[in-house]
Amino acid sequence: MHADSPFQVYTGLCPGHPLPKARYASVRTLFHPRSDGSIVLDSSAMVLYLPGPKTVTGEDVLELHVHGGSATVKAVLSAVAACPASSGNIRYAEPGEFTKRAFLNDRLDLAQVESLSDTLSAQTEQQRRAAVRGSNGALGRTYDDWRHKLLDARAEIEAIIDFSEDQHFDESPTDLLANVSRQVEEILQGIEVHEGASHRSELLRNGIRIALVGPPNAGKSSLMNQIVGREASIVSGEAGTTRDIVEAHLDIRGYLCTFADTAGFRSDNTPGMPGASNEGVMGAIEREGIRRARAKALESDVIMVLASIERDSTGENSLVYDAETLELLQSVGKGIVVVNKCDGVPRDELELLVRDFVATTLEKVEGLLAEPILISCKEAQTRTAQIQDPGGVHKVVNRLATLFSDMTALPANQQDLHGVTERQRQLLVQCRQHLEDYVGNTSSEDVMDELNFVVAAEDLRYAANCLARITGRGETGNVEEVLGVIFEK
Amino acid sequence: MHADSPFQVYTGLCPGHPLPKARYASVRTLFHPRSDGSIVLDSSAMVLYLPGPKTVTGEDVLELHVHGGSATVKAVLSAVAACPASSGNIRYAEPGEFTKRAFLNDRLDLAQVESLSDTLSAQTEQQRRAAVRGSNGALGRTYDDWRHKLLDARAEIEAIIDFSEDQHFDESPTDLLANVSRQVEEILQGIEVHEGASHRSELLRNGIRIALVGPPNAGKSSLMNQIVGREASIVSGEAGTTRDIVEAHLDIRGYLCTFADTAGFRSDNTPGMPGASNEGVMGAIEREGIRRARAKALESDVIMVLASIERDSTGENSLVYDAETLELLQSVGKGIVVVNKCDGVPRDELELLVRDFVATTLEKVEGLLAEPILISCKEAQTRTAQIQDPGGVHKVVNRLATLFSDMTALPANQQDLHGVTERQRQLLVQCRQHLEDYVGNTSSEDVMDELNFVVAAEDLRYAANCLARITGRGETGNVEEVLGVIFEK
Repeated sequence: MHADSPFQVYTGLCPGHPLPKARYASVRTLFHPRSDGSIVLDSSAMVLYLPGPKTVTGEDVLELHVHGGSATVKAVLSAVAACPASSGNIRYAEPGEFTKRAFLNDRLDLAQVESLSDTLSAQTEQQRRAAVRGSNGALGRTYDDWRHKLLDARAEIEAIIDFSEDQHFDESPTDLLANVSRQVEEILQGIEVHEGASHRSELLRNGIRIALVGPPNAGKSSLMNQIVGREASIVSGEAGTTRDIVEAHLDIRGYLCTFADTAGFRSDNTPGMPGASNEGVMGAIEREGIRRARAKALESDVIMVLASIERDSTGENSLVYDAETLELLQSVGKGIVVVNKCDGVPRDELELLVRDFVATTLEKVEGLLAEPILISCKEAQTRTAQIQDPGGVHKVVNRLATLFSDMTALPANQQDLHGVTERQRQLLVQCRQHLEDYVGNTSSEDVMDELNFVVAAEDLRYAANCLARITGRGETGNVEEVLGVIFEK
Repeated sequence: MHADSPFQVYTGLCPGHPLPKARYASVRTLFHPRSDGSIVLDSSAMVLYLPGPKTVTGEDVLELHVHGGSATVKAVLSAVAACPASSGNIRYAEPGEFTKRAFLNDRLDLAQVESLSDTLSAQTEQQRRAAVRGSNGALGRTYDDWRHKLLDARAEIEAIIDFSEDQHFDESPTDLLANVSRQVEEILQGIEVHEGASHRSELLRNGIRIALVGPPNAGKSSLMNQIVGREASIVSGEAGTTRDIVEAHLDIRGYLCTFADTAGFRSDNTPGMPGASNEGVMGAIEREGIRRARAKALESDVIMVLASIERDSTGENSLVYDAETLELLQSVGKGIVVVNKCDGVPRDELELLVRDFVATTLEKVEGLLAEPILISCKEAQTRTAQIQDPGGVHKVVNRLATLFSDMTALPANQQDLHGVTERQRQLLVQCRQHLEDYVGNTSSEDVMDELNFVVAAEDLRYAANCLARITGRGETGNVEEVLGVIFEK
């Protein structure tokens, strides 16, 4: 709730009792302010009085820790609203209002506000770790540092313009310019590192999209079920069939993943597909399903190709896969290959089949670094819990987790960059473009052209403004607009 | 979570930082204890260290107020469990464990534990007010006071037995006995007051059961819907049809009510029932439905009789009611009468019909104190919001709320008695029976018979034990059994 002063609320609820010592947890009986002491709200609430400016919002804060129960909370909230207000109203805080006040009172910069928002909405451990990294203000300090350097550089450029006829510079304009350009170059390198990190942190934040592709009956749904049943938890209950594609949001070892279980592939170039000859012309609906599955797969971050061992009518085992799914893996550039139904096949024969698959096919696929993983969803289902990793599903999850870690990890000295959000990345891109303009304008033949200098100085100012908009500090002009975007979450 | 000492947890999560001053809200960065400072759980958590014995459980308490979000809470909980424990384990508290510890450490008596439990589960404002009244320990102090008086009285009786041959009493045994009996009499009166109050507080705690009865088509469902739509909120989503009886748990002006919308009554003695003659013999199923409705109504605390104005085929208006519903009201002893469909009837004619109904019928019904309430569910449905109380449903709710208040109110000096629970009432009844035995044993002709004295002393001891079992204090022997009953909630 928001009141002009927490004193109003305190004296309303605890008439005749002294305000607790600052930051000191005190027990008080809370009364309804209009009941003359007859309506007790909580006979032993913990009251904390936190005087500003060293509080979460920078303002005076009164915390009431009451005994739970919906009726109690309801009664206390309506009692607070009924407290006599000296001026203005006591009212519910708007969504995000406290964070907004914390920003306006300089307790948080915008990058911290965003990481706070990410922390609150984190569903998995890796999301949480990434979000909390941005909350210490280090990102904001970096951007502020860069901004000040760019503003200083701009001042130097302007000095060159203003005094270009004056010969009493300690350094020559050429040396000055070279010095500024070196600083710009350093910041450009820094921005590239941050942009790269932002892609990795976006994967953590929004989840890694995985397409599970393979011929029909290879066991895609069984594999999904095994992964969910043993190694992952479903994060969102929104899983549903959208355009023939079932999506599930899973927490795999702390990584948020969006699994798309696509329609089975059966393009014309599927070799060894049993019964393919019986099908004749593929139905239009099936074709459309496959088109969608293909589009979905191309949007993914990781392709998980499922093949299987199938026994044909003559009793011969063969390794069945869909060539297009391997093309998809190569297009996306990251993926793993899993071979299902490995149970019941003699070890020697299985090894031969897989070695042949690797030699004739997989070795040509770019983006595939490791050997195929051999599993059996059937064994995973039927074997008892005594056996460690029956059917080998555990290996699949291990390989995924290693891949996720490679895709999202940042060096130890770049951990804070996990806090870089998409909004910040876009501003970094704009900043980089202005700096690249600066480089273009100052590297022309006629560097000493005064107009070029004027434009270059403006480039630096624009670049500095982009950084100011990241933290919300400095002369950005449209702070309210930026705030609107962030706080409407 | 429960740990042998909060220090273990604090030093695990905040390595190298001093323990905050007692009761002093301090900001700390929380780390995972096995991450060597690399995994941040919350970069600015509020930590409160509350040393015993003046804490909720009487033990040392460490409170961690962390930024929300399910992933953060999960991470902190698993980090706490991973803290190195000097002895024993750090583990989740069992349900009710903290309250149990508070009881065992003498911070709460059982009456307070029960009112805490009631406070937490309160759904409506009146339930909450009643529950919080019992939380201040006044009830426990009263029972402890009575218990001590009874134990003192028993000691005096035993002194009379032991020294009955000794003539050096300051008072004569007869005077002593009279003195003890006077005290017992006072406590008996107190118990009666508490027993009476417990019935009222049970009505608040468990809700007031209301049966809405009347002939078919009188508009029972419409009235229910109007009450729910305008004046009440549904408390529980469990409303459902049970044996033809729809029950809804409503919050009417803070009072929890269980509304039973029973099958329509149409017993043979329904006068003026339109179409009744067409029915012939009532079907067995319908008869069974009415039997159940009747049984349900007799279990209720309040009967709400619905009658209606009906126009017959000749255009004549008549007031239709079911005589049996009025009998039910008289049996239960509390209720109101509502006449529906009053729209469209000329005022004079309506007054005449109602006056006749009161004079010939309602005046003979005991338990009915006020005039019937005239309403129109049709008007309530169709009139716009501009008109205050269209159709008069508001009046019905007002009358109900006044009735509820009369049924549950306690005098100002008995407010604490709202905390008396059913368990306590049963023990009070037992206590009263022992005291009545005492009165019987000491009021016989031969009061000075030594055996009678021995039995009377035992009566007082039994009575005192009943009181000890209410608070859980004193030599009750089976505290664990009582705790089991209370804490399994």
